Amino acid sequence: MMNFKQLLRHPSSRLFIDQARFGVEREGQRVNLIGELTRTNHPAIFGDRTFHPYIQTDFSETQIELITQVTDSIQELFQYMAAIYDVASRSLPNDEMIWPLSMPPALPEKDEEIMIAKLANFEDVLYRCYLAKEYGKRKQMVSGIHFNFEFGDDLIQSLFVQQTEFADFTTFKTELYLKTARNFLRYRWLITYFYGASPLSEANYFTDRPAPNEPVRSIRNSSYGYTNHPNVKVSYASMAQYLTDIEQMVEEGKLSEEKEFYTPLRFRGGKRVADLAKTGVRYIELRNIDLNPYARLGIDQEQVRFLQLFLTYMLWVEEDDEVDQWVEEGTKRNEKVSLEHPLSQTEFAKEGYCLLTDMKKMVLELEQTEAVPLIEKMLEKLEQPNETLAGKIYQDAQKESQHDFATVLGKKYYQNTHERPYQLAGFRNMELSTQIFLFDAIQQGIEVKVLDESDQFLRLQHQDHIEYVKNANMTSKDSYIVPLIMENKTVTKKILEEAGFRVPNGAEFTTLEEAVNAYPKFAHQVFVIKPKSTNYGLGITIFKEGADLADYQAGLSLAFKEDHSILVEEFISGTEYRFFVIDGKVKAIMLRKPANVVGDGKQTVAELVAEKNLDPLRGKNHRAPLELIQLGDLEQLMLKEQGLTVSSVPEKGQIVYLRENSNISTGGDSIDVTEEFSESYKQIAVSAVEALGAKISGIDLIIPDKEADPNETPTAYGIIEANFNPAMHMHVYPFAGKGRRLTMDVLNLLYPELHIIEAETEVFNAEK
Amino acid sequence: MMNFKQLLRHPSSRLFIDQARFGVEREGQRVNLIGELTRTNHPAIFGDRTFHPYIQTDFSETQIELITQVTDSIQELFQYMAAIYDVASRSLPNDEMIWPLSMPPALPEKDEEIMIAKLANFEDVLYRCYLAKEYGKRKQMVSGIHFNFEFGDDLIQSLFVQQTEFADFTTFKTELYLKTARNFLRYRWLITYFYGASPLSEANYFTDRPAPNEPVRSIRNSSYGYTNHPNVKVSYASMAQYLTDIEQMVEEGKLSEEKEFYTPLRFRGGKRVADLAKTGVRYIELRNIDLNPYARLGIDQEQVRFLQLFLTYMLWVEEDDEVDQWVEEGTKRNEKVSLEHPLSQTEFAKEGYCLLTDMKKMVLELEQTEAVPLIEKMLEKLEQPNETLAGKIYQDAQKESQHDFATVLGKKYYQNTHERPYQLAGFRNMELSTQIFLFDAIQQGIEVKVLDESDQFLRLQHQDHIEYVKNANMTSKDSYIVPLIMENKTVTKKILEEAGFRVPNGAEFTTLEEAVNAYPKFAHQVFVIKPKSTNYGLGITIFKEGADLADYQAGLSLAFKEDHSILVEEFISGTEYRFFVIDGKVKAIMLRKPANVVGDGKQTVAELVAEKNLDPLRGKNHRAPLELIQLGDLEQLMLKEQGLTVSSVPEKGQIVYLRENSNISTGGDSIDVTEEFSESYKQIAVSAVEALGAKISGIDLIIPDKEADPNETPTAYGIIEANFNPAMHMHVYPFAGKGRRLTMDVLNLLYPELHIIEAETEVFNAEK
Repeated sequence: MMNFKQLLRHPSSRLFIDQARFGVEREGQRVNLIGELTRTNHPAIFGDRTFHPYIQTDFSETQIELITQVTDSIQELFQYMAAIYDVASRSLPNDEMIWPLSMPPALPEKDEEIMIAKLANFEDVLYRCYLAKEYGKRKQMVSGIHFNFEFGDDLIQSLFVQQTEFADFTTFKTELYLKTARNFLRYRWLITYFYGASPLSEANYFTDRPAPNEPVRSIRNSSYGYTNHPNVKVSYASMAQYLTDIEQMVEEGKLSEEKEFYTPLRFRGGKRVADLAKTGVRYIELRNIDLNPYARLGIDQEQVRFLQLFLTYMLWVEEDDEVDQWVEEGTKRNEKVSLEHPLSQTEFAKEGYCLLTDMKKMVLELEQTEAVPLIEKMLEKLEQPNETLAGKIYQDAQKESQHDFATVLGKKYYQNTHERPYQLAGFRNMELSTQIFLFDAIQQGIEVKVLDESDQFLRLQHQDHIEYVKNANMTSKDSYIVPLIMENKTVTKKILEEAGFRVPNGAEFTTLEEAVNAYPKFAHQVFVIKPKSTNYGLGITIFKEGADLADYQAGLSLAFKEDHSILVEEFISGTEYRFFVIDGKVKAIMLRKPANVVGDGKQTVAELVAEKNLDPLRGKNHRAPLELIQLGDLEQLMLKEQGLTVSSVPEKGQIVYLRENSNISTGGDSIDVTEEFSESYKQIAVSAVEALGAKISGIDLIIPDKEADPNETPTAYGIIEANFNPAMHMHVYPFAGKGRRLTMDVLNLLYPELHIIEAETEVFNAEK
Repeated sequence: MMNFKQLLRHPSSRLFIDQARFGVEREGQRVNLIGELTRTNHPAIFGDRTFHPYIQTDFSETQIELITQVTDSIQELFQYMAAIYDVASRSLPNDEMIWPLSMPPALPEKDEEIMIAKLANFEDVLYRCYLAKEYGKRKQMVSGIHFNFEFGDDLIQSLFVQQTEFADFTTFKTELYLKTARNFLRYRWLITYFYGASPLSEANYFTDRPAPNEPVRSIRNSSYGYTNHPNVKVSYASMAQYLTDIEQMVEEGKLSEEKEFYTPLRFRGGKRVADLAKTGVRYIELRNIDLNPYARLGIDQEQVRFLQLFLTYMLWVEEDDEVDQWVEEGTKRNEKVSLEHPLSQTEFAKEGYCLLTDMKKMVLELEQTEAVPLIEKMLEKLEQPNETLAGKIYQDAQKESQHDFATVLGKKYYQNTHERPYQLAGFRNMELSTQIFLFDAIQQGIEVKVLDESDQFLRLQHQDHIEYVKNANMTSKDSYIVPLIMENKTVTKKILEEAGFRVPNGAEFTTLEEAVNAYPKFAHQVFVIKPKSTNYGLGITIFKEGADLADYQAGLSLAFKEDHSILVEEFISGTEYRFFVIDGKVKAIMLRKPANVVGDGKQTVAELVAEKNLDPLRGKNHRAPLELIQLGDLEQLMLKEQGLTVSSVPEKGQIVYLRENSNISTGGDSIDVTEEFSESYKQIAVSAVEALGAKISGIDLIIPDKEADPNETPTAYGIIEANFNPAMHMHVYPFAGKGRRLTMDVLNLLYPELHIIEAETEVFNAEK
């Protein structure tokens, strides 16, 4: 027999020893906010369940199933799990949440009120009807975690090259997983002891069949859980034997089909069980993990890390030659442990102690020292059943009821996901626009992968259609030259001017001398001096009544500090509006106002600011769509100029500005005014963006009077600049006015084949 | 009558007083290097003469015509003129040049040996046959400058709004040009005096008709030049009268068609003369400018500035009421001045003095003080006929012959354009790749406009097809996401890896701690530490035999100095090659070698370097495709390590490297090795670029042994990086191997409809 322990010990395997791939499927019943099973359908917003990679239904219509993609690290796994959970939770009706326990809440008395999942595929529905008949509907209402695990390819490769027994890599790999599986089945009682978390059932779960003597460790993992009939037996001696046995069971009618073989560990290869003969085992699926109600996601990182170490140990530790007996013994022990009282010592504590002590030795030998404290913690839990999940749940259920305790936890998780709807758990370090964009993509069932978190780089996929997206709206739909045009103000102006749009007259200069020589041209105009390429308002001087030579020169010097090229331009006065154009349509128009408060005749400026800052849309450092209003030196100076201090009490209705500039980043207000503009202005924005060749652009127009008709008044507008990566989050969650889900429009542009709902519907916008 | 003087004086016109648009058409005979008229056809490389906007033929096949686009400044005008001249000159057969005089060189004795231009359009040929018959072929062989001039639109607008006489802007504009034209025709003798430059004819010019008494000031501008028969008379009193008269002449058979009306000044509006009734005058074309042989381009900036001031003055100065008489008087005076001896005082010196003195007053009044010295210089020339162009040519012709003097000048200009074939006159401040790209576009008849010189931003147009190009290969053909992918090494690697290409194994780190923790993974490998996003070789450490922890940490610190993200990667050893892929094909493969010299057993290292630096392809600061080899501290250190100094004499054939790095910018050699690679490697480069979604990319492969088959040896290559704006000039003008005209390939990608010749033909590469 293969000595995997020796292979794992080999120094050349060290580099890859913790290399693995992970995936999680997590089921959960949808309930209302007082913990009653919902009667609503799976939300339509998720679209077609036939392809949705992340959000599905399991047996019943109320049982949502969240599925992560395969990830290369535990950290990444939990990022995606958190994100998918956030999306699912916030996409449910506002009065629904996800039940945190494996055991369902009280079930309806009548069987017909338990809705089988309304799937599009007729065979899928038929299979569920068969299951309902064969096992009963109630049994199927239990939820859990399916944990997919694959040893790293480099790791298996490096084990493979050190041995000589198997010439074929696939066969070797299958052998490796067979050993892991047999030992896992033999020792899984330990996992049930630690992570079993279904000690008590709720009303109407056991109405149609015998119930265990509650409390236990895990109803779900016991024979009272959802398992095959006892006459279903399969050998794990070899893959050939395993497949033959399953086939036999089906032939004998003990199983309706291969996939009805429910086992705590499944081999995964191709699409069907029988494919394993060809593909070999690619990964294994553990199905014996109950939902951990203390983890928002149903499982936590420590659990996954322990499972990884445990599975590695299953490959490491010796097994018995009599493999079927070995597995059978495991099944017996697991049944016993499952049905033990959750606060009792387990019957097999001594075997557990030996296993964990030996695991610790392995971990040290493989230089995974970081894992030692975890194993020591598990050793302690072996002594302290009250620290196991089942133990804790039982104790908490004693204080109130299990139902009340689970409802409180569910609401806590609900509030957690709903608190800041513009953020996406798992990816909170990314830009808000990207978080919102990721939310929408996951919701719409587009596969997402964050290629580079700090660079806001995403990969999207739907079927064979792959798109790469950076900063949520830099995509393949725009051509390379477009951002280069927009980055260069002179080129942008030349192109817009040639296309007949009004842009400020002016000239570009690269030397102070040239610019000074041009003084007579501008002296008596209203004009502005600005650096050519910076975008943050630095180095800009506006001359509203012309300028004398000295002031002109001072303005030039200021601008030249910011860039080696500067522009001297006609100043077009009026209000600046951001027109957001996507694919030839104006999707949002925004007015930005400087930081301000409105008096109520009672509160001081400081109090008004504090009150305005309570808005959950306000935060710090771009973590929220709006920034907190500050009361620093600049704001106090601004107050002083108006004859006010922070302690002044403005009159009712009096607007007090705290800043001159209207930037959102200094506490400004974002106000959606999309509906206030006539088609003619929108047409100008659309045509100008078209002239620049762009699919996505935020174009800034100065408009003195938005009631004037730009087709009749040539000076009705002036185009200031076009932006190639305009912020979207401020449009989705504006301070005032309607939110515009531009992220959906971008998805629609990228994936027209999905017919994504137009943003106007604004389904999941924050409530104001 | 309109008082234009008053309008010009108005303060609101000041801002635009020097605003104007310019265009030049310059004819010239093609001759061989000893000044004999060529017998070759117009070069095929210019493609179809029916649309070429820049390079055409005039009457005869040997008479090339260079045409600039309309420009907004004199400086810009001369940039394009210089560029077009460079392209035309370098696209001629190597033994041909452009004759610098208006008067042609000696003509063939037989009439039939003067080739009429071989145009595609039958009517064009027919018209030339008619002209040959009507005026004689020889007369048509004269060349000159056509100078197109338009007053700035803002200027005319500001004049227009100050007057009340004309309600219609177009009518006003026509009136303005009519006045300018009448005065110009009256006073043009002054231009003939200054710029007349055809004092002498060469052999066989006057064989078929009477000759003037040479030397004169301008044969071309006299009645001996190319003018209508004396019975052709047209009134300039009004546009209506002017058009009626021309129509009359055609009806009476005095002209074959409208365009046969040859006048020193043409009104331009629509396509045909008759269109002027509708379009009004848009600009005027001066046809009385002889070629200035002292200017490489046939005219210089001072001349154009003087013409601008002169035309402004023609609008300013009063005219006579009897307009036809007024024009007639001008014609008479011009005839006289044309036929004066070039070294004599002109008969009308006094009128000239008054005109120039009054012009000076105008210039001062309009605050164009910069122009005063120019007018004073012209005043001096009035006194000194030997300083006029005709005077100078006559004197030079006296020293040798006019033919020899013109041949010497022609050869000087020829050498000037051929000296550095990788540069383009007029745009030498731009990057070399852009200069070469502009050259090719002009040659192929694609209209070019430099939108931003310092930003390498071009606009190209052929018919309605507009393309914007930055840095010669950043175009609309690549999508926006492509450069963003290539800019991010981690994302590039992930995509290439997923697509099955070999990229170095490794990991990205953003903190020193994480990176240090990963030490055990890399300790015993061959690996490299590098910053994630810099491209200049800074912060890179290679560990060829693994590393101890201290060295590893030092390497990390070095990399973190350059970027906040670093990569630790497997090091793939071998030779690095740049594969240049355009539109799914490898167009060039380049090997870069560190700065080096090869010994000859005689010369010292210093002498060998000096000799190698004589290569015209070497220069400084990226003004040439290769950089000069330095002998600074780094080079001397490198020599020392080899036991050499600058005074050592290397053996014959001994290669002495002066640098470790292979960058071209530090004196390295670029060697084209395109033909040395099998299709399989090219296919890898093409597929990798395709996986990244790019149309244009320079992708760097490390190849240990280029004879190995990459389809059989998985380690035959490794992809290091892909570049989205790869330099092209080093491929077009390599140190060794065949030049690859990649700029043509980019044009071909942008304009497939032009069927531009494939770069392999390499028609105009530098001779080595």
